[in-house]
Amino acid sequence: MKYEKSFYQIKSNAQIFEKIVEEKETIGYYNLPYQDTTEIKEFAKTVKQKDIVVVGIGGSSLGTYAIHQFLLERENSKKLHFLESTDPVDLHWRLKKIDLDHALFIIISKSGSTVETISILKYLHSITTIDNTNTVCVTENDSKLNAFAKANDMKTFEIAKNVGGRFSVFSPVGLLPLAIMGLDIDKILEGCKKVSESFFDKSEYYDTIMEKARFIVENKNRFNINVVFSYSSLLDGFNKWYVQLWGESLGKVNINGTKQGLTPIGIIGPVDQHSFLQLVMEGKRDKTITFIKIDDFKDDMTIPDITIPHLEELDYLNNIKFKDLINMQADSTIEAIKNLKDIPYDIITIKQQNEYNIGKLMFTYELLTSIVGSFVQINTYDQPGVEAGKIILKNKLSIKK
Amino acid sequence: MKYEKSFYQIKSNAQIFEKIVEEKETIGYYNLPYQDTTEIKEFAKTVKQKDIVVVGIGGSSLGTYAIHQFLLERENSKKLHFLESTDPVDLHWRLKKIDLDHALFIIISKSGSTVETISILKYLHSITTIDNTNTVCVTENDSKLNAFAKANDMKTFEIAKNVGGRFSVFSPVGLLPLAIMGLDIDKILEGCKKVSESFFDKSEYYDTIMEKARFIVENKNRFNINVVFSYSSLLDGFNKWYVQLWGESLGKVNINGTKQGLTPIGIIGPVDQHSFLQLVMEGKRDKTITFIKIDDFKDDMTIPDITIPHLEELDYLNNIKFKDLINMQADSTIEAIKNLKDIPYDIITIKQQNEYNIGKLMFTYELLTSIVGSFVQINTYDQPGVEAGKIILKNKLSIKK
Repeated sequence: MKYEKSFYQIKSNAQIFEKIVEEKETIGYYNLPYQDTTEIKEFAKTVKQKDIVVVGIGGSSLGTYAIHQFLLERENSKKLHFLESTDPVDLHWRLKKIDLDHALFIIISKSGSTVETISILKYLHSITTIDNTNTVCVTENDSKLNAFAKANDMKTFEIAKNVGGRFSVFSPVGLLPLAIMGLDIDKILEGCKKVSESFFDKSEYYDTIMEKARFIVENKNRFNINVVFSYSSLLDGFNKWYVQLWGESLGKVNINGTKQGLTPIGIIGPVDQHSFLQLVMEGKRDKTITFIKIDDFKDDMTIPDITIPHLEELDYLNNIKFKDLINMQADSTIEAIKNLKDIPYDIITIKQQNEYNIGKLMFTYELLTSIVGSFVQINTYDQPGVEAGKIILKNKLSIKK
Repeated sequence: MKYEKSFYQIKSNAQIFEKIVEEKETIGYYNLPYQDTTEIKEFAKTVKQKDIVVVGIGGSSLGTYAIHQFLLERENSKKLHFLESTDPVDLHWRLKKIDLDHALFIIISKSGSTVETISILKYLHSITTIDNTNTVCVTENDSKLNAFAKANDMKTFEIAKNVGGRFSVFSPVGLLPLAIMGLDIDKILEGCKKVSESFFDKSEYYDTIMEKARFIVENKNRFNINVVFSYSSLLDGFNKWYVQLWGESLGKVNINGTKQGLTPIGIIGPVDQHSFLQLVMEGKRDKTITFIKIDDFKDDMTIPDITIPHLEELDYLNNIKFKDLINMQADSTIEAIKNLKDIPYDIITIKQQNEYNIGKLMFTYELLTSIVGSFVQINTYDQPGVEAGKIILKNKLSIKK
């Protein structure tokens, strides 16, 4: 008797765990928490420039943006800039804010030939001097960009071949600009390690992450939209990073030729209570919601004990700290959703804004993405779907010549 | 014989048109293009302050933000600020950028008792003087906020009861701050009128809007995600405004008790080619895509004719204007999607960035939202789903006292 099949079942947690352990040998991001950061820190100390300019798009900027926004956008003697879009009006405006004579340019491109990044690099050449005193490159060791950097005696940092762009925030791609901006990058990696170790030891985080992944996969046809509802404006960058990580990793054709698609959405509380929440509450039940809360914001700003004539009915707000108000808003939304009983949700509470905690959060999401990808039997780490457009563009540009 | 039924068919275009014509009598936003803007313009002329601060959330700020970002964030002697979130770190940071002694505060709340807005208003009282020389209110005529304003002899502008928050951008909610910032608000309304007239005359825009709405409704169970893919960073605010308009208007229980839910997503090109595009290309076919392009950006920034040693293979970028590059990127993505043959898309091309065109675009989306809402037989203009959380919050806050 012979038996063949074209369908597949969802594997057991044990099988998936084994697969992830195997992946760890070949997929680079798993090992980033254990890298030696000396070279990055040494270089960061030498940087005198005040305007730090990341030239990079997608995975080359989103993670850095997320951590920077979460931790220190607000107070710094240095200023971090991002040049990524080819929108000329946007680009012009961003360039205006940079003191070109006192800027450090960090050119980041894994392949070394990203159209947006090289276009901007070329443009920079026409408005300032680009040399080894003001430019450093982060790229693969055998890329054309690396050759350019070496020929100009520029400092370079490597993106390992087996670290994908959207999984590269804990490589020099993110650590270099963040170290220059004054963050303790070792603390970030400690957060990653904490999650990694406890997952691979099957202790603290193993069950949580595995169960969440399994729920998402088992219910992917019913709940095909995964909303992250972050109750802090500081997590807007994290949301965008999550959208890339989730969408680009999991939006794939699986081994059976079936188009998979868990759609990521990032929203911000309380602002989006006035926007997306109505759809969550009364719309189709096709969404899971993950709330992210910050337990203790580093800010004691308080609503004063003031009675405004005619607005007395809002005096119940008096003496409330904003950090308590926003968390009560989160809790109220959570309770309202809980009462509906048919929307799956979970809550991640971050104790405080610091390097360790953002490392934990982001590494958890990377792991979760890998595990979901493994469950649905896709290649989590490639992005073949975006190639077609790139080829068409190249043809259009070549014909124009 | 008696016949009863609990199901419904999608009505004919003619029936829907009739319903929209009827709605026009009671729903306020339809008539905003025809309002008298003299009072707004007169007041705007008198404003001497350099820092203009909109205090408002959701519908009270999103539309203003969208138009401002599209047209003039980049060059202005005045600066527009938004205070909306209760996130204390974010709020602190935004306040730091405002010169409180030379600021005009525009307090915007339809109900007059929005928790976020009044919390911030109270806080402002504790750090500066709030009086009729530096504060103006935009609210319903019988709100507590209006009573407060009148008692303090402050200038007020009315939000008509029948104009919903997310449909209020063309009321004083949006027009007042935009006029103060120097925009030609009559040109904005001209754009609205153009769309409105041609729709109600059943000329130019009637078929386009009606067909699009009908397609979305007929296929809503298959394509339940409506992506707006805007090829300009200047449209990020528009995307956010669209998400609120679409999500909050259409995420509703319909007359048969069925939860409706068309999920809006806004993405930006070319940045999100490096993020969400993979999911569009290879993910589940549950998305419609609307591309928005700007035909002629007001910027001739050009990639210089420079050969960078080792990066010669990218010389095909030389002499290309960024505004042409971004549109070629859009066209390449569109072509790649067209080649797939199973993703419904449409393309809106805006000729130039100006008041008239953004008025047209936004009014078109308002109309489209109304028509889709009418087809699916919901109340497009309420938001009952967000009330539960508000009540829970009020209880929590009252107990805390």
